Amino acid sequence: MSYRIEHDTMGEVKVPADKYWGAQTQRSKQNFPIGAPASMPKEIIHAFGYLKKAAAYANAELGVLPEEKKDLIAKAADEIIEGKLDDQFPLVIWQTGSGTQSNMNVNEVVSNRAHVLDGGKLGEGDKKIHPNDDVNKSQSSNDTFPTAMHIAAYRMLIETTIPGVEYLRDSLQKKSEEMKDVVKIGRTHWMDATPLTLGQEFSGYVAQINFGLKALKNTLAHLSQLALGGTAVGTGLNTPKGYDVKVAEYIAKFTGQPFQTAENKFEALAAHDAIVESHGALKQLAVSITKIANDIRLMASVPRSGIGELIIPSNEPGSSIMPGKVNPTQVEAITMVCGQIIGNDTAVSYAGTTGHFELNVFKPMMIANFLQSARLLGDACRAFTDNCVAGIKPNEKRIKELLENSLMLVTALNTHIGYEKAAKIAKKAHAEDTTLREAAIELGFLTDEEFTAWVDPNKMIGNLE
Amino acid sequence: MSYRIEHDTMGEVKVPADKYWGAQTQRSKQNFPIGAPASMPKEIIHAFGYLKKAAAYANAELGVLPEEKKDLIAKAADEIIEGKLDDQFPLVIWQTGSGTQSNMNVNEVVSNRAHVLDGGKLGEGDKKIHPNDDVNKSQSSNDTFPTAMHIAAYRMLIETTIPGVEYLRDSLQKKSEEMKDVVKIGRTHWMDATPLTLGQEFSGYVAQINFGLKALKNTLAHLSQLALGGTAVGTGLNTPKGYDVKVAEYIAKFTGQPFQTAENKFEALAAHDAIVESHGALKQLAVSITKIANDIRLMASVPRSGIGELIIPSNEPGSSIMPGKVNPTQVEAITMVCGQIIGNDTAVSYAGTTGHFELNVFKPMMIANFLQSARLLGDACRAFTDNCVAGIKPNEKRIKELLENSLMLVTALNTHIGYEKAAKIAKKAHAEDTTLREAAIELGFLTDEEFTAWVDPNKMIGNLE
Amino acid sequence: MSYRIEHDTMGEVKVPADKYWGAQTQRSKQNFPIGAPASMPKEIIHAFGYLKKAAAYANAELGVLPEEKKDLIAKAADEIIEGKLDDQFPLVIWQTGSGTQSNMNVNEVVSNRAHVLDGGKLGEGDKKIHPNDDVNKSQSSNDTFPTAMHIAAYRMLIETTIPGVEYLRDSLQKKSEEMKDVVKIGRTHWMDATPLTLGQEFSGYVAQINFGLKALKNTLAHLSQLALGGTAVGTGLNTPKGYDVKVAEYIAKFTGQPFQTAENKFEALAAHDAIVESHGALKQLAVSITKIANDIRLMASVPRSGIGELIIPSNEPGSSIMPGKVNPTQVEAITMVCGQIIGNDTAVSYAGTTGHFELNVFKPMMIANFLQSARLLGDACRAFTDNCVAGIKPNEKRIKELLENSLMLVTALNTHIGYEKAAKIAKKAHAEDTTLREAAIELGFLTDEEFTAWVDPNKMIGNLE
Amino acid sequence: MSYRIEHDTMGEVKVPADKYWGAQTQRSKQNFPIGAPASMPKEIIHAFGYLKKAAAYANAELGVLPEEKKDLIAKAADEIIEGKLDDQFPLVIWQTGSGTQSNMNVNEVVSNRAHVLDGGKLGEGDKKIHPNDDVNKSQSSNDTFPTAMHIAAYRMLIETTIPGVEYLRDSLQKKSEEMKDVVKIGRTHWMDATPLTLGQEFSGYVAQINFGLKALKNTLAHLSQLALGGTAVGTGLNTPKGYDVKVAEYIAKFTGQPFQTAENKFEALAAHDAIVESHGALKQLAVSITKIANDIRLMASVPRSGIGELIIPSNEPGSSIMPGKVNPTQVEAITMVCGQIIGNDTAVSYAGTTGHFELNVFKPMMIANFLQSARLLGDACRAFTDNCVAGIKPNEKRIKELLENSLMLVTALNTHIGYEKAAKIAKKAHAEDTTLREAAIELGFLTDEEFTAWVDPNKMIGNLE
Repeated sequence: MSYRIEHDTMGEVKVPADKYWGAQTQRSKQNFPIGAPASMPKEIIHAFGYLKKAAAYANAELGVLPEEKKDLIAKAADEIIEGKLDDQFPLVIWQTGSGTQSNMNVNEVVSNRAHVLDGGKLGEGDKKIHPNDDVNKSQSSNDTFPTAMHIAAYRMLIETTIPGVEYLRDSLQKKSEEMKDVVKIGRTHWMDATPLTLGQEFSGYVAQINFGLKALKNTLAHLSQLALGGTAVGTGLNTPKGYDVKVAEYIAKFTGQPFQTAENKFEALAAHDAIVESHGALKQLAVSITKIANDIRLMASVPRSGIGELIIPSNEPGSSIMPGKVNPTQVEAITMVCGQIIGNDTAVSYAGTTGHFELNVFKPMMIANFLQSARLLGDACRAFTDNCVAGIKPNEKRIKELLENSLMLVTALNTHIGYEKAAKIAKKAHAEDTTLREAAIELGFLTDEEFTAWVDPNKMIGNLE
Repeated sequence: MSYRIEHDTMGEVKVPADKYWGAQTQRSKQNFPIGAPASMPKEIIHAFGYLKKAAAYANAELGVLPEEKKDLIAKAADEIIEGKLDDQFPLVIWQTGSGTQSNMNVNEVVSNRAHVLDGGKLGEGDKKIHPNDDVNKSQSSNDTFPTAMHIAAYRMLIETTIPGVEYLRDSLQKKSEEMKDVVKIGRTHWMDATPLTLGQEFSGYVAQINFGLKALKNTLAHLSQLALGGTAVGTGLNTPKGYDVKVAEYIAKFTGQPFQTAENKFEALAAHDAIVESHGALKQLAVSITKIANDIRLMASVPRSGIGELIIPSNEPGSSIMPGKVNPTQVEAITMVCGQIIGNDTAVSYAGTTGHFELNVFKPMMIANFLQSARLLGDACRAFTDNCVAGIKPNEKRIKELLENSLMLVTALNTHIGYEKAAKIAKKAHAEDTTLREAAIELGFLTDEEFTAWVDPNKMIGNLE
Repeated sequence: MSYRIEHDTMGEVKVPADKYWGAQTQRSKQNFPIGAPASMPKEIIHAFGYLKKAAAYANAELGVLPEEKKDLIAKAADEIIEGKLDDQFPLVIWQTGSGTQSNMNVNEVVSNRAHVLDGGKLGEGDKKIHPNDDVNKSQSSNDTFPTAMHIAAYRMLIETTIPGVEYLRDSLQKKSEEMKDVVKIGRTHWMDATPLTLGQEFSGYVAQINFGLKALKNTLAHLSQLALGGTAVGTGLNTPKGYDVKVAEYIAKFTGQPFQTAENKFEALAAHDAIVESHGALKQLAVSITKIANDIRLMASVPRSGIGELIIPSNEPGSSIMPGKVNPTQVEAITMVCGQIIGNDTAVSYAGTTGHFELNVFKPMMIANFLQSARLLGDACRAFTDNCVAGIKPNEKRIKELLENSLMLVTALNTHIGYEKAAKIAKKAHAEDTTLREAAIELGFLTDEEFTAWVDPNKMIGNLE
Repeated sequence: MSYRIEHDTMGEVKVPADKYWGAQTQRSKQNFPIGAPASMPKEIIHAFGYLKKAAAYANAELGVLPEEKKDLIAKAADEIIEGKLDDQFPLVIWQTGSGTQSNMNVNEVVSNRAHVLDGGKLGEGDKKIHPNDDVNKSQSSNDTFPTAMHIAAYRMLIETTIPGVEYLRDSLQKKSEEMKDVVKIGRTHWMDATPLTLGQEFSGYVAQINFGLKALKNTLAHLSQLALGGTAVGTGLNTPKGYDVKVAEYIAKFTGQPFQTAENKFEALAAHDAIVESHGALKQLAVSITKIANDIRLMASVPRSGIGELIIPSNEPGSSIMPGKVNPTQVEAITMVCGQIIGNDTAVSYAGTTGHFELNVFKPMMIANFLQSARLLGDACRAFTDNCVAGIKPNEKRIKELLENSLMLVTALNTHIGYEKAAKIAKKAHAEDTTLREAAIELGFLTDEEFTAWVDPNKMIGNLE
């Protein structure tokens, strides 16, 4: 491989000749060979693209950056946003906890790329754009990295997570309506309980997800606040007056999302409670969806020795040894995702406690977990919906069979003959493996006609509406 | 000990002669000797007091319970609410996951206590009030226990947690104002950074807590929804028309809190996402407060070999072996509390995933964790405020000394001479253990006058306002 | 209430006249009104009893404490060990993170109790035994509290946890043998799989618990190492030569457990990795038992609309509204316990990270979580065994019915006709709701005789033995 | 892109013409577009290489697979082991929870690659090697995937994690010896305590890691047990007699690690407690290393306003805005890694609870978390050692200055003048900002000579040796 020499304040470094990054990126690459290469999420890199462009615009508008420099920086930044320079960001999550090295990676790439866009040759001649004094102007890693975290997190939620979860919610809602008249046996404690409709059961799922979505959306306001303008410790040192508000406006404009400058910059650098808060809502959704997916898994367990009330689509052969087997694989995928999110929440919360004084230095780890959770949840909801929920059908024959056998229809008798007599009927039927009707009449607690009138599953499901 | 005989649908049981509980309570006591006795939180018992009274009122108003029975039930329930019968609830958290046995404990105690209030003798004569048919009328454990969970959780947040956290927030706010002019060295990565004021630093803490409080209050709406009226599976079987709305109104009236009937009863029985959601916000506050308390601990570390920027009150001898030692004990107590809450959040989230079909059966464990977290947070904030935060004073001499020695004041030069030259000054001063001024002049980058004009900590703190 | 005046190095304090505790205990009581009173686990107090007695013996033997003082201290300590002074320890978990205040509580109680045992009157006259200079001789909170942690944890594991878990293991083993010939349908992905015996299924549970027990016992060696003798920072300042070894020998003698002095005292004060390690094994058992208990819950779900392969004992009425219902309440209790332990593990791990320099200051919280987990696990295993596992019976009729209907017996054909043809048979049988035999013959892949010879559940279960 | 047609038991699928995978892989690729593509860890794929080769050898030896087929399978498997076919495994973690689709991916690639190795053309002609009947012979996903999990986990621990951790341990040990005579002030509660040497402090770190390594090695025995031979549910259906032992021997031979067949196959399929157990030990190490790294971070905080007792290497410019800043970036990287592992432990534990009946279906998620933790820990230990620990130097001037100022040297007086008088000295010195010597003499508690004789830091550090 051929190299060129780059330098920083510590001296010279050899950098691959064809790469836009500079000395500090190269040092980080060498000093942190931890886990898979280039693991810093690309969403963070793209967020930095918006940020650097916005900073150049704000700096220019406030008179501290020449128009020409602004244009060059913006041009390079646009390429980053478009993903054209993705292979110029070789750094890992497990670097300095402020993300300084990824900020510098961006500064260096913009500087060198601008040089080339300006007609220069990589590694030759004087660069018009200095990575620190121009690209990083009015900035510090301490306020840029958290800003990139919020931009990336917010966009992921808006573009992937929320639409994915809503897509699942809508499908469950549709199923709830489709199956609103299918009366089935309820189950509590994994035991027979009183009946309800499949539509009612699914309405509970819809309610869970709606609560979760509301909780998630509640966190967007905090996430929309950007640290940029706080620079090194939150005071805004080395920024022109009005810069913080202005740069947030440009970011809002370029991303199309309602970002604004953080009301308290000290909080925005030293703590990442917005990430903790928002990930908490992702975790809540993961909890909810686990419950929902488990129910579907169980109701779809094959009728011959399982529950079998629902039929789910067969998407692939289920077993490499058991021919003809079909498994609830989408349920398995999404519940694994949910379990991951629950684990990530521990990581994010732990990381959230680790700030000291003016800076939290678990930034890259926090955002990597956040973006993984947010993406996986959105993706998994979509796959689960398309390949499972949308194709759910009730197995009406099986549902009817289970309903009619149930002993818990006896509950309807409480208000007529009291809890204790009703209990005697159920116990007798259970012990003698007979029907409730037979047991009831034999015990002399009511007549055949009364039984018919009082014990009707269809009348046991609708008291609330 | 002397006993009397009580019976339930499974037969006879010996119960201590002087206790109001009945057969089912006694069975549970014997079958679940797990951990400390009587561990079911008293807040749940008191919440059941409100619930049973409200149910009696709603049942009476809807014509399914005679006025006389209502009055007797309400009288016994009032005693529960007042805590007079606390020793009648011997059951543990680790019982049936629906809390059925605690619901029955309440039903039995109300029934027997009502008998005595009505002039009867415990264990003798016919009881006017039947535990299932009267006290539990229009109810199931499946809707009463989650209702008691929400009542207890909501009240704890309103009465203890939120006031405690606000009390801390107000004290931090006061300190922020008091110390708004104390310029100190900032620290990032545990290294010198540019200056800020103590007031700014504390304003970040206030911002963190305000975000946390907002997040916590956002969860109250979900918690205010009550499952009651859903009965066994959410359909409301065996309840009179309109009962769910009515009973929630009575609970709201008796507790003075804005409870209302749950919009979806299936969700309210099968999932406890409201508890997961609200505990998530408690966890966020625990994360925030950990950061804040740690900062105070560190700034209060003794000046002779620590940071020593803050002076905290001495409340007790700090060491059994090291005479004269004073430790940040309040910080230690509250950070332990916060760590517990982070652990409890894992427990609550896990438990939240475990619902199946129409019922989550980790109810007692979920609410026990919730109430512990909520109470500890409120209590600890109050103790921390009274015994630590309120007495914080800046150690101005130490603060000044550290500020003047710092090399990071060099950052102010970036906009005058550029990042690279500024770095050279800092490095030289560090290597030669000299001052920035000397290094700067020696390097010839600026004059003595320029240094005086450009490097002024008091001008480095205020760009944002 | 009447008071007496006690004093410490900070001045005077009013203490209830009839209590043995002194000034420092009273200060802590007032400064930390957090959560339930007296929450410091009694096991820690009792462990301190052993410790103070052993220290007195070691000090006397090494000539730094008069025999008379030793005897008085030992006498008071014995009363602590026997639980006679339990009401003299009013402090909470949420105090100083070194547990200094509970150490002083013990020192004060021993000092005052010794005074009374010696014929003195509480609060009057000169005390022979000084809380710091005598009871705490050759000690610091920093080495006593971790020592008490290890004593309490070790004893809990040996006396409660391990016997409880082994009791469950033995019962599962017995069931495995009893049911070794009951062939049933296997289930993977909640779907039919190939058959196995109930004995084999339960042998897996036994194996899980045996691995867990082995893992737990592996942690005992670390737990058996005692910090005592390290005093304030691990150097052993203010202890006589040989004291650390000697005092551990006395603790071993008095407790009857193989305690020994820690090989590295710095580790023993600054970190509590032994607690983290051992709690990790408790968590592993909690994970295993959750799986086992869930299986039992599911196999016991009522036959009419559940799985119904096992019959579990009916211990109590299951529902306050559904008469005759019997629920897997012991499963619910033990799985809640397991979930709690999983949450506690997060708390303990988090706390384990928080040590700084020479001391971890999350000690009380760590040990409180540990002891809760260890006790609950032992207790719950015992209750689960007695009230559920020991009474398990196979529902042979149901098991046979499910086995015979299963489509996955087709797997036996793979080695005869290949995976793809076998899959065709299973699919046809499923689609047409017919039997494998009929589908196989109709497809012409084999003869009736071949089917009989090849597809025999009893031949499908024993290849490994 | 050009395609060929592949088929499975569900029908035809279009597969990219140049890829070796088949129908089932392609279906999975389409059905699970969740997160980053090809996220299934490559270590699992390589483990499958060993497994398929060993199975072919065992099958051939036991007479159920022709030698020629064995050779072809082995040849293709060797290419997988060598990483030559890494781009043939496009599937993600978030697929079926049994890993069936990745098992089939391997079966299909081996089958097609063998076809080509045998002179065939991809997609044309009859294949000699059938993916299910030959490559998967005597196997099921249910026993292959857990076997691959153990192989991959075991190898990662042996090759990366343990050597990395030992490398760090050895470096800390070396530092402990180098600095064994550097006496410094101890710190407890972030406050001055009695002195110790840097060597002693570092010896505590070494002890922590040694305990952690021992705990980790204790888990290897469980991990070395392989599920292979259990097939679908643990009974070994469709395997030749003796196969399980034989195949484990071949895996041991090919990998060079002491693998053996699992003593209980039911446990090995239905639970992944070995992964839970071993990850628990990784978590313990993460907890320990967090404590150690934090101490180093703090002791290296810059002398002018921090602790400054250690000097760590400067590896890169520390700040994009503050010139000349050097940060503890390696500490930040490794503590982020440790925090990730703590989060992963929650995910793994949760997943461990989710097995039902004969199968745990969180397999891919569990192993992905395990491998991430194990790799990151090993890598991070190495980077931290090379770039930080190995270069640590004591700042003797600063250490001496802090030591001499400390008030806690007063503890040495306890055994001479008692705790209470000693406390008075310390308080006086603190209040009057004077020295202990002056305060002591002024109070008349001892003479100047006594002070010199009794208060000597160098005598306060060595009582235990």
